[in-house]
Amino acid sequence: MNIRLVVNLLGKALAVEGALMLPSLLVSLYYDGGDWLALLLAAMLVSAVGGALAMLVRPHNDNLRAREGFAAVALIWVFMSMFGALPFYFHGSIPVYTDCFFETVSGFTTTGATILKDVEALPRGLLFWRSFTHWVGGMGVLVLSLALIPHMGARSQHLLKAESTGPAPGKLVPHIGKSSKILYELYLALSIIHFAALLPCGLDWYDSLIHMFGSAGTGGFSNYNASVGHFQSPAVDAVTATFMLLFGVNFTMYYLLLNKQWRMVLKNEELRLYLGIVAGSVVLIAINILPSVGNWWEALRQSYFQVSSIITTTGYSTANFDLWPQLSRTILVVLMLLGACAGSTGGGIKMVRLALLFKAMARQVKQAIRPRSVATIKIDGRPVDEVTISRVLVFFFGYLLIILVAMLIVSVDNFSFETNLTAVLSAVSNIGPGLGAVGPTGNFAGFSILSKWVLSICMLVGRLEIYPILMLFAPSIWRKN
Amino acid sequence: MNIRLVVNLLGKALAVEGALMLPSLLVSLYYDGGDWLALLLAAMLVSAVGGALAMLVRPHNDNLRAREGFAAVALIWVFMSMFGALPFYFHGSIPVYTDCFFETVSGFTTTGATILKDVEALPRGLLFWRSFTHWVGGMGVLVLSLALIPHMGARSQHLLKAESTGPAPGKLVPHIGKSSKILYELYLALSIIHFAALLPCGLDWYDSLIHMFGSAGTGGFSNYNASVGHFQSPAVDAVTATFMLLFGVNFTMYYLLLNKQWRMVLKNEELRLYLGIVAGSVVLIAINILPSVGNWWEALRQSYFQVSSIITTTGYSTANFDLWPQLSRTILVVLMLLGACAGSTGGGIKMVRLALLFKAMARQVKQAIRPRSVATIKIDGRPVDEVTISRVLVFFFGYLLIILVAMLIVSVDNFSFETNLTAVLSAVSNIGPGLGAVGPTGNFAGFSILSKWVLSICMLVGRLEIYPILMLFAPSIWRKN
Repeated sequence: MNIRLVVNLLGKALAVEGALMLPSLLVSLYYDGGDWLALLLAAMLVSAVGGALAMLVRPHNDNLRAREGFAAVALIWVFMSMFGALPFYFHGSIPVYTDCFFETVSGFTTTGATILKDVEALPRGLLFWRSFTHWVGGMGVLVLSLALIPHMGARSQHLLKAESTGPAPGKLVPHIGKSSKILYELYLALSIIHFAALLPCGLDWYDSLIHMFGSAGTGGFSNYNASVGHFQSPAVDAVTATFMLLFGVNFTMYYLLLNKQWRMVLKNEELRLYLGIVAGSVVLIAINILPSVGNWWEALRQSYFQVSSIITTTGYSTANFDLWPQLSRTILVVLMLLGACAGSTGGGIKMVRLALLFKAMARQVKQAIRPRSVATIKIDGRPVDEVTISRVLVFFFGYLLIILVAMLIVSVDNFSFETNLTAVLSAVSNIGPGLGAVGPTGNFAGFSILSKWVLSICMLVGRLEIYPILMLFAPSIWRKN
Repeated sequence: MNIRLVVNLLGKALAVEGALMLPSLLVSLYYDGGDWLALLLAAMLVSAVGGALAMLVRPHNDNLRAREGFAAVALIWVFMSMFGALPFYFHGSIPVYTDCFFETVSGFTTTGATILKDVEALPRGLLFWRSFTHWVGGMGVLVLSLALIPHMGARSQHLLKAESTGPAPGKLVPHIGKSSKILYELYLALSIIHFAALLPCGLDWYDSLIHMFGSAGTGGFSNYNASVGHFQSPAVDAVTATFMLLFGVNFTMYYLLLNKQWRMVLKNEELRLYLGIVAGSVVLIAINILPSVGNWWEALRQSYFQVSSIITTTGYSTANFDLWPQLSRTILVVLMLLGACAGSTGGGIKMVRLALLFKAMARQVKQAIRPRSVATIKIDGRPVDEVTISRVLVFFFGYLLIILVAMLIVSVDNFSFETNLTAVLSAVSNIGPGLGAVGPTGNFAGFSILSKWVLSICMLVGRLEIYPILMLFAPSIWRKN
């Protein structure tokens, strides 16, 4: 392991984080909420530490292999969260450091789970930083760095691989730095459109930005206690729900659309599965909640928003779905597990993996009936190699194993079974709310310090899709070569 | 598909079922509870139908391939349960046929979930039949038939494969009919010892037989509403808990012991994992329930019995674990998923699959760190081929998929999330009780007709380890060759 290279990359990323705190500092100065000093101190500290590491620890060689890529990504996410928590801690509005860390991990991993009982009590600069972490974390901190620092490009495919979502991150163009740049340009463009679409709905620029950050990153932090439900506006609901869905789509689709390859988009299996599951869930839930809601229009409005929010792993809410009938609640829990599309900003197992899992099972049945039959699994007409299939199958086991283990530890706090299960699932899939005590009107404040650390690790493990964080605990990664 | 052969096998199995009803008829006559006519009619009907099918539908050829094996096993289990339900229905003590079917599937699959609110109200002949299905279903109806009907032996490995538990059913000796015979002799011997051990604890021969059937098949039906807790006897608890554990062990171990191959037994990875998880769970739960139970002796006694009952998927209870703290309840739910050893009478995912899943994950981590490393996965020092590993990985996905789908349907009844999840998990893993409304003091009576059919299918799917039942729905299995 080339530890010097990993530390050097960590330093660069922390320096970038310092720069990322500046917009929040400006917002803080503009609104004069008394939080500018905390933001300034944190920005200076993280820049200084990052700059020092990047300058003092220079790698002897630039050989970035898979193991360095995984280690760098894992460490960068852990330390970015540790330093990113400092503004809250310095300001004192979140007095316990564990809570600051939880909130920041929840931000960067685009989870949106909060330990705050009263979000609205925080000053606007800190709330801006809290939501801005969603936007940065959505597409990936490193993808951003790759887009900004061109000379890192050539040797960085392992970084991109470890941070992007889905089993096989696509390079849009042969050059990886350029791919990152295109991805971020698309992300930025969609974000600006979303922001612009919220303004005519009656939101001011601050609220529009905050809620755009949450949708774009599929995060879910709002600056209001009632989340998007605060606005009581069908227009805000419709715009937000639709943009959440759009940010749950593989960004490659937008690149294809820009290049007028309509047919490839229309035929994309993952996209079809995604939209099919969304449509089915919206209809089923609307039928299920109709008796209590009263009319079809309201039932569909509530159902569309909540399904869109949960399947994209955003976590905004406009209705207290914890009070819905069991069928609707169960559908939402299944959606929490599934998540959105690969190559989007969303979490969860992802649609393309689900498709592969189904196909692997169908093949097994076929082969059991006719043992000598041979069949390759195809996605979008192209064969998927067996290594990828095996990786997806193991990923599914790993995903559930982490949920079970974390649930055992969290259950010591003696919340209900339902609360524990959905809290952990919500953390690993980067959703935000769950059911019971962590439902849309609840929060994570009641958990013990231990549980909060476990849930923070779950969020990181989920965002980085298990392996990078898991590998930090494998002795062989630290071995010298 | 050779449908005539499948129907012929079905007929033979039904004829065997008629004979299997005779002991219950004798018990019924002995106790004179008014249920002899129902048992006699059912026995005559199933024998007549079975005999007619076996005689009239003669196969043109004896070619039993994998697909015929799977189809025969699936159909035999479904029809045996349908006919096995008749004594309850004819007698009228369970008035709705769906409930009779549920109870019988629960018996044959060794689940032990009941729709009876008052078990003690049933006459003794019917209760004997109810529990005897556990004993028959535990080792497998077909394994029994193979042992009894010698000339089926030569071409029956596909039958054995579809009915035995675990990823790779071992042949003890090259000849498969002989293997079945040895297995049943071991099963019979262990059963007799268990029966004999219960007598000195103060149980009469009837109660001893009933509870032996439940432990041996890892079923869990008791003839008392309070299950094994009825006896309030530390001796009964200890004997039952220990024999449940013994019946959760791969029967190959006993064959090895008889052949004095101690070392192979001691080094068996699955057995070590099984005993390790049992020991760990017993200690953790004992610590967790100590404050409410009061003393170490009682905490360990309750913990040992309940852990043994749940991990072996038996489902007897001596304490209302639904009232335990969340950590203990969560441990039990995890054990429900895991189950006992392959080649035992227990259900669940099974220990050897768990070991393989862990090893597959560890290999993935290793290969991500060093992409060019090649590693075969070994169990007991012997390499496991990739096809088996892939099958186990897909099995894990299929297992959870069935739980999720069934849970969605069952949730329409609007029981709590916890009740729905554990009811389905309990059915698929063939346990019996779950948490909430289906906890140790509850039952499945409150579910709708639809849910009862879904849960019945779950029990069959779980007992036959997914594929045989799933294949009945694959069009290609019915195609002519």
